[in-house]
Amino acid sequence: MSVILGIDPGSVKTGFGIINYVSGKAEYVTSGVIRLRESEDLPARLRVIYDSVTQLVELHCPQEVAVEQVFMAKSAGSALKLGQARGAAVVACVTQDLPVAEYSARQIKQSVVGTGAAEKEQVQHMVKVLLKLPAAPAEDAADALAAALCHAHMRQSMINMAGARSVRRRRIR
Amino acid sequence: MSVILGIDPGSVKTGFGIINYVSGKAEYVTSGVIRLRESEDLPARLRVIYDSVTQLVELHCPQEVAVEQVFMAKSAGSALKLGQARGAAVVACVTQDLPVAEYSARQIKQSVVGTGAAEKEQVQHMVKVLLKLPAAPAEDAADALAAALCHAHMRQSMINMAGARSVRRRRIR
Repeated sequence: MSVILGIDPGSVKTGFGIINYVSGKAEYVTSGVIRLRESEDLPARLRVIYDSVTQLVELHCPQEVAVEQVFMAKSAGSALKLGQARGAAVVACVTQDLPVAEYSARQIKQSVVGTGAAEKEQVQHMVKVLLKLPAAPAEDAADALAAALCHAHMRQSMINMAGARSVRRRRIR
Repeated sequence: MSVILGIDPGSVKTGFGIINYVSGKAEYVTSGVIRLRESEDLPARLRVIYDSVTQLVELHCPQEVAVEQVFMAKSAGSALKLGQARGAAVVACVTQDLPVAEYSARQIKQSVVGTGAAEKEQVQHMVKVLLKLPAAPAEDAADALAAALCHAHMRQSMINMAGARSVRRRRIR
């Protein structure tokens, strides 16, 4: 069993999603969006992200964290804001000794939808299907759940590969 | 008396500088550079920044923090990295309930050198002169000390302005 926290950081809205991955099956635990007041200054907003992620970790005790690795941004200015939000979220996890895995948006879409070029709506739809939810989660929450699912799939394929290798080794002997 | 921590965040090198501001005079306390291993992944580097700044705060008990506000970056990619480093440093301060003031590079240069378009060497030289140091500090440490000095000057001029206002009020009465 592995509880995975997915985070989709943003300077205005930071999505989060927690899944429980048991014997190759993903169960939904919780998800939501940390909304930040644009009227507040950046240090205050970063504290809200840090405190909220810390609370999530204390409440749900995830063992691993998956965060979307952002390479592209509209401008250097928005990249700086986004980077700071991401830094606050990542620091909240690493200071609680949680391993943080980073995945590109392309890897996450590939893993959840089957194509790296999937649209936002397709991600929301597949998250709903894979986690057997009554409705599609909000965009940022869906992205965070997709990051957690991507991490679960990556771990599973590594376990499968390790299993295949040990079978092969046994055959050779 | 006011102990001010200045921070010049970076994803490879983060400068810090602490000054003690007593009755309009700045005294040097300490400064240095937090060097990050480029071989380490980003979450690990962000943890080093967070832990180092937390240690500095615990050791020197600053009451206020000044951080350079970065608007410009070479690319969106480098802005994202820089933003995350900045986020980790700011979060380390706000989680210890320290007020964080942000100043643009232009404001800091204006305050320390007298011109917003000053060169790096001029900043290093003026930091050496203002803090009566035997030699100019390293670039990143000098920038951090300059941020702290800028904050001290800003506070002083606000106090002077408040003083002038109360004198004027007394005269009117």
